[in-house]
Amino acid sequence: MKIKLFVALLLMCGMLKAQESGEKRLLTLEDVMPAGSNWYNLQPENRYTAWWGNVPVETLANEVKELLTGKSIVTVERLNEIAGETVVRSGHNILLPYGKQTIAQLKTGNRRMQIDWKEGKVIWQQNIPNGAGNQDFTLKSKNLAYTVAGNLYVATADGEILQISTDGSTDGSDDIVYGRSVHRDEFGITKGTFWSPDGEKLAFYRMDQSMVAGYPQVDISKRIAAVTMDKYPMAGETSHQVKVGIYDVKGRRTVWLQLVGAPDDYHTNLTWAPDGKRIYVFELNRDQNDMRLVAYDTETGKMEKELLRETHDKYVEPMNGLKFLPWDATKAIMQSRRDGYNHLYLLDVKTGKTEQLTQGTFEVQTFVGFNTKDKSVIYLSNAIDPRTSCLYSLNLKHRRATLIGAGEGVHYASLSEDGTMLIDRYSSPTVPRSVNLITMHSARGRESYRLTNILTAADPWQEKGYAIPEITSGSIKAADGVTDLYYRMVKPVGFDPSKKYPTIVYVYGGPHAHNVDARWHWCLRGWEAYMASKGYLLFILDNRGSEWRGRAFEQATFRHLGEEEMRDQMEGVKFLQSLPYVDADRMGVHGWSFGGFMTTNLMCSYPDVFKVGVAGGPVIDWKYYEVMYGERYMDTPQQNPEGYERCSLLGKAKNLKGRLQLILGYNDPTCVPQHTLSFLRACEDAGTQPDLFTYPGGGHNMYGRDQIHLHERITRYFDDYLK
Amino acid sequence: MKIKLFVALLLMCGMLKAQESGEKRLLTLEDVMPAGSNWYNLQPENRYTAWWGNVPVETLANEVKELLTGKSIVTVERLNEIAGETVVRSGHNILLPYGKQTIAQLKTGNRRMQIDWKEGKVIWQQNIPNGAGNQDFTLKSKNLAYTVAGNLYVATADGEILQISTDGSTDGSDDIVYGRSVHRDEFGITKGTFWSPDGEKLAFYRMDQSMVAGYPQVDISKRIAAVTMDKYPMAGETSHQVKVGIYDVKGRRTVWLQLVGAPDDYHTNLTWAPDGKRIYVFELNRDQNDMRLVAYDTETGKMEKELLRETHDKYVEPMNGLKFLPWDATKAIMQSRRDGYNHLYLLDVKTGKTEQLTQGTFEVQTFVGFNTKDKSVIYLSNAIDPRTSCLYSLNLKHRRATLIGAGEGVHYASLSEDGTMLIDRYSSPTVPRSVNLITMHSARGRESYRLTNILTAADPWQEKGYAIPEITSGSIKAADGVTDLYYRMVKPVGFDPSKKYPTIVYVYGGPHAHNVDARWHWCLRGWEAYMASKGYLLFILDNRGSEWRGRAFEQATFRHLGEEEMRDQMEGVKFLQSLPYVDADRMGVHGWSFGGFMTTNLMCSYPDVFKVGVAGGPVIDWKYYEVMYGERYMDTPQQNPEGYERCSLLGKAKNLKGRLQLILGYNDPTCVPQHTLSFLRACEDAGTQPDLFTYPGGGHNMYGRDQIHLHERITRYFDDYLK
Repeated sequence: MKIKLFVALLLMCGMLKAQESGEKRLLTLEDVMPAGSNWYNLQPENRYTAWWGNVPVETLANEVKELLTGKSIVTVERLNEIAGETVVRSGHNILLPYGKQTIAQLKTGNRRMQIDWKEGKVIWQQNIPNGAGNQDFTLKSKNLAYTVAGNLYVATADGEILQISTDGSTDGSDDIVYGRSVHRDEFGITKGTFWSPDGEKLAFYRMDQSMVAGYPQVDISKRIAAVTMDKYPMAGETSHQVKVGIYDVKGRRTVWLQLVGAPDDYHTNLTWAPDGKRIYVFELNRDQNDMRLVAYDTETGKMEKELLRETHDKYVEPMNGLKFLPWDATKAIMQSRRDGYNHLYLLDVKTGKTEQLTQGTFEVQTFVGFNTKDKSVIYLSNAIDPRTSCLYSLNLKHRRATLIGAGEGVHYASLSEDGTMLIDRYSSPTVPRSVNLITMHSARGRESYRLTNILTAADPWQEKGYAIPEITSGSIKAADGVTDLYYRMVKPVGFDPSKKYPTIVYVYGGPHAHNVDARWHWCLRGWEAYMASKGYLLFILDNRGSEWRGRAFEQATFRHLGEEEMRDQMEGVKFLQSLPYVDADRMGVHGWSFGGFMTTNLMCSYPDVFKVGVAGGPVIDWKYYEVMYGERYMDTPQQNPEGYERCSLLGKAKNLKGRLQLILGYNDPTCVPQHTLSFLRACEDAGTQPDLFTYPGGGHNMYGRDQIHLHERITRYFDDYLK
Repeated sequence: MKIKLFVALLLMCGMLKAQESGEKRLLTLEDVMPAGSNWYNLQPENRYTAWWGNVPVETLANEVKELLTGKSIVTVERLNEIAGETVVRSGHNILLPYGKQTIAQLKTGNRRMQIDWKEGKVIWQQNIPNGAGNQDFTLKSKNLAYTVAGNLYVATADGEILQISTDGSTDGSDDIVYGRSVHRDEFGITKGTFWSPDGEKLAFYRMDQSMVAGYPQVDISKRIAAVTMDKYPMAGETSHQVKVGIYDVKGRRTVWLQLVGAPDDYHTNLTWAPDGKRIYVFELNRDQNDMRLVAYDTETGKMEKELLRETHDKYVEPMNGLKFLPWDATKAIMQSRRDGYNHLYLLDVKTGKTEQLTQGTFEVQTFVGFNTKDKSVIYLSNAIDPRTSCLYSLNLKHRRATLIGAGEGVHYASLSEDGTMLIDRYSSPTVPRSVNLITMHSARGRESYRLTNILTAADPWQEKGYAIPEITSGSIKAADGVTDLYYRMVKPVGFDPSKKYPTIVYVYGGPHAHNVDARWHWCLRGWEAYMASKGYLLFILDNRGSEWRGRAFEQATFRHLGEEEMRDQMEGVKFLQSLPYVDADRMGVHGWSFGGFMTTNLMCSYPDVFKVGVAGGPVIDWKYYEVMYGERYMDTPQQNPEGYERCSLLGKAKNLKGRLQLILGYNDPTCVPQHTLSFLRACEDAGTQPDLFTYPGGGHNMYGRDQIHLHERITRYFDDYLK
């Protein structure tokens, strides 16, 4: 303890000295990594908000208050007092599920409960069975769906336990599993149970993986290393088979949807009709180029109607379910990229007819909700600039979209119960965090809003006296000569344009992600700031194939992943080489996952350009990647043998000249170790010398202190060989 | 082809130029590694010899000749002509099993055959069944024992196939296996079948491993990575159980020896009595401190007699079977370390009494055979100098040992049928290879011999104009202040005593091995010569615990592996630090297996001494090592928890300061990957940064081009961080 205090005093002295002399402090990994000892202190100020019906509230450590008046609603102490024991430790864990009602919903390790703090009593509680996974609780009926091993259960509001399935695997094999997310979380799937609007019927997935090969994952933390066989269908190999059941809680029976298509088709974005009589399923063939929206009768499981069909010569990718208009059960909002950009459509579920609601060379990024009073749809889009995500309200009567709040930055919004208010959180390149309460109203066909700023956070780095690198964003032309590509550039701290700096390209490059957007510091990653403080220049470019830019931009890479992406990145390199302060003899590249694939690819394809690379959890050969994601972009190895061959890095291993460190989570379940290990083998056979590191027990990404260790490692590698 | 020729010309020009100018060529990895393109050209000249009864012969590519006269005995062409097809491709593959008889024994992929080249016909042949493993052929009866999966078979001389066992595992589990080497090849065991002298009875092992945990080994070369569970009993865990059966080929029946002791005891060095009526088994308890030599009746399997017993408070390690005197079936030569050094004893198998034949503070290294005419025993010992292995003949009548041949270097000998002649091959620090034919005779109680030098090879490195580093050997005192430890020092090419050189300690350090002996270049490893040619100084010291130095020297490490060994190595470091031309600020360490353990240990225990280390296939924690070897030196983790804890490197991971690269065969079945991976995890948790590399598909050691790749890698690491 004495030593710690002494060190703390030393550090304080250092701080004071630095501040007195006007010197800026340099960021360390402890400052910029989430598990770092100083990370929390350098986060922009925040306010934690939620909704109590239509009342905006703020949650604090000890209580929940009205956001605008600051009036206390309920305290942690009061709830525990009523419960007669500690059932909640933080105001952030108090849910106010019903507007106006003085009821708090709490969840402890083994119970869910509701407390009426006005009445001063626990009005309901439900035990959570031991080991209940995939918990899906519905407020409507207070039924809880959950899984234990491969089987599905429901705990009713009054505590009865119903076993829905019996043939789920209980031997650890995961051959047959119920109630879990299927299709490896692709197609917008995140869970495996779906309550009907009244909470009395449960739609659920059943996945049969018995025919899927297991990938051996070795756990070295056991006394004797143990293996688990992780069901992992590789591209072109036998895939799993999914069915959808509907369990009627009151009737105690399951009906199975009589799904159309082949056994290994995809069944996604299950949506209940508001009356619970129908369920809508987006069904996609394994080739992922033929999608149907089908309505099923939930009493009989029979197909009622095929509402619409979308096909494409590359692929169709249903990512979102239907959102029924709260005021008209015959219509729902649907999203589709059928015109080349992701847009909102109004679907008539009686006829299957659609009307396009938004249009243009931009993307609707998120459907937020409905304003039930004005009958408008709230959504986020990047209509202003591809790097932004701004809020819009689209009045369905007038079909007019109105920008809500700041027309800059990247927004997240949470709607009130009736949808007339929202809490809008955003950051922009120069605004670390802004929290605003927005009240919308419509009058005579015109939408308007009132904005109350709750918080505009100061720059914590500036406040604490840190040297902040210059971070800019701009665009260059893609390799096609036409398309704009956006980049972020991070200049070294103390930048001197007459010097030449070692330069690192950070890259991801794959679909469904982007690196450059208009949030704080242009979406800077903490490690980049750290590297800039060590004297590196960082460059990050979103190539074709990445998200928010429309279908053609993404699909340019179809059947030849890596090629267009690299061409674009090399345009970025040309741009860098044109800058006098970039040292073209000291160019590095780093990326993870798809970015690890890109990094390895760039190191082997442009061995005279890049001197040093660090590739994390890389894809090496798409045949080792899974069916759902892999076949979407590459088709199967059987359909596209030349593409798989050309895009494999195994054949490029012989070209490696620079220093390339491959790093993987030893138990990576996503880019399985076979990728990296096969590349090593290819290098060994070809006589080239990559480097390697691994995190036993680590998955596809490292977290906590491992993340700091990892970035220390990545940094050291560049320091060793690029600096 | 044209390009290759051009390159060859360029290389020749380079050679000529170097030689013209008097410059020496520097060794490359291609010169010093067995798989290197120039390795073969730099091997000392050789002559391939064998025995035809009592006639020494030389085998050549196309024929077999009499060694002394050069007279052709038989040609490859002649044998193939007789067979009517190509059954042999090289004279080296012709065996002349019977003295004086004109019979050649050949083995093709699927047949064994004997050809009488004088008669001009195939006189016998036997098909080898597909997939026959562990083939054990006996000339006497021409029966062949072999295994398929877990079961044992005999193919008789006339082609009948007899299945000896039926409950051997055929599912790949290796739960029950027959006819294989057991006890993980410890205690001198190398095989699992033992023919009786007349070739009509077969003693064999049956090993039940069903209770042994499997270590998961992942094969990434498959389309989808596959796992095999490799039976690997870890120290303190449940071990396998071995039985011995005797199969009577004519009687078609098996009897089981009624072995004494516990089910997981060790049964080693099976020796048939000359008349086949008895079999002798060395039986050792699992604790390895209580050994009995037991005689069993091979007709009934019953124990006949416990002949002798050896106990020790540390361990007893039977490594050699009995060698019956060819002229007296009641007596056999036995080896024991009971007086502190490995010596020969004459055992009376009727009484169990022993007489010590050799004595002194040296070790008998190898029993070579008997001279049946003179009634003497031929063996190798290091009586002259601990680093040597020289030939001796011990006349059993006069009990006098006579040095045969050169009293220097390290010898290997092959005896003629009657034992009166031997071919002696040796090298010494300055003699790359010497082949000699020695004829022994005894007259009036005095042994003498006649030596004919067949070959004394010139130094190929000198001949080819390579710069040869200075290689010396000497001794220092061990950490106990008393014991002599021998070292080899390799000075950098172009050594200048006024300069300071980066210095690498190469280390093994474990039992049953040594690094320094009196063979060519003091047992130099090719890589050391390569490193010396790159400007490094190499130092190699055999610490206490290593072989050829007696029991106390080896057992000093009992229950605390690594500690005495490191103390001794640090005496070597002190010696190095006293040398003006050793740069104490640039000290590295490298070793493999036990040497990987030592390297990692030294890097973590003396972080301020060693700047760079490369540890291959290391032991990290002895609890992950196997029962047989591990428990001998460490007892079990249950018996010796403090020892295991203290000797584990997991707790030392936090001390790592220098650069340490760990390298392992990804499928190492000996030091399983759990060692290295656990160390990585410990380093990650402690925030230290080792480096890593692995060879997918590689085992405990790398061979072929992998070995060159590996040494390029090891070299680069020292070049990167030590040079």
